[in-house]
Amino acid sequence: MEQVFTDEYFMKKALQEAETAFEKGEIPVGAVIVVNNQVIARSHNLTEMLNDVTAHAEMQSITAAAHFLGGKYLKECTLYVTLEPCQMCAGALYWSQISKIVFGARDEQRGYLSMGTKLHPKTAVVSGVMAQEAADLMVRFFANRRK
Amino acid sequence: MEQVFTDEYFMKKALQEAETAFEKGEIPVGAVIVVNNQVIARSHNLTEMLNDVTAHAEMQSITAAAHFLGGKYLKECTLYVTLEPCQMCAGALYWSQISKIVFGARDEQRGYLSMGTKLHPKTAVVSGVMAQEAADLMVRFFANRRK
Repeated sequence: MEQVFTDEYFMKKALQEAETAFEKGEIPVGAVIVVNNQVIARSHNLTEMLNDVTAHAEMQSITAAAHFLGGKYLKECTLYVTLEPCQMCAGALYWSQISKIVFGARDEQRGYLSMGTKLHPKTAVVSGVMAQEAADLMVRFFANRRK
Repeated sequence: MEQVFTDEYFMKKALQEAETAFEKGEIPVGAVIVVNNQVIARSHNLTEMLNDVTAHAEMQSITAAAHFLGGKYLKECTLYVTLEPCQMCAGALYWSQISKIVFGARDEQRGYLSMGTKLHPKTAVVSGVMAQEAADLMVRFFANRRK
């Protein structure tokens, strides 16, 4: 039987969120949080619209998922995010004790890997899922902005 | 002439916020953000009440200060916080390009210094302001909780 709920399946939903951010003139990053193959939170970057550096896609999804679950720990959850999380978001994910993070494109400059941010020891990480699609959207966004 | 608006003056306001957190059963951390000697944001930890790991005092004050200023950068601002910021909060402060951070007690285990989080190169840091008062409040909180 074909597996429906793959990492690509949920990353496509995160990419749809990133496209919504793109259309709003926001740096195009999207995220969803999944538990038992159900999407319980979806969000996209809103730092410009909200005038708030904390309004990254991941931060919003962490808050929304905790609200849905009625508890602040995301121990059975997976975050799908189109871009590697930054220090702030990785720090929030550390506190959440999330089970798994799946991200798309690397952020060599500001991503948590280059910056050395620690995740929770119980958190598994998968990277590079639909990375090209996520990176293409970023490149297109910054090319438009330079025009 | 005596200087009124010292770091201690504003840290006392952050400590008042921490005491409010204490009374609510929250880990007692408080913060204020100041620009031109005016307090433009004040907050305390609300992670339990909001069921949200992102609801640290600093995060709330960053959002509130940006809202007050009508812009997301806190370039002329000083944050006073009773406890050394964590990875998440230091990461948010990095994005905010805040001018100055004044914190009270060290957090040897989870603070940004031990964790290696990078602040913005333009951000100055002062530590240890009313550290004993901040640390005493934490000790009293955890002693109560163990009872």
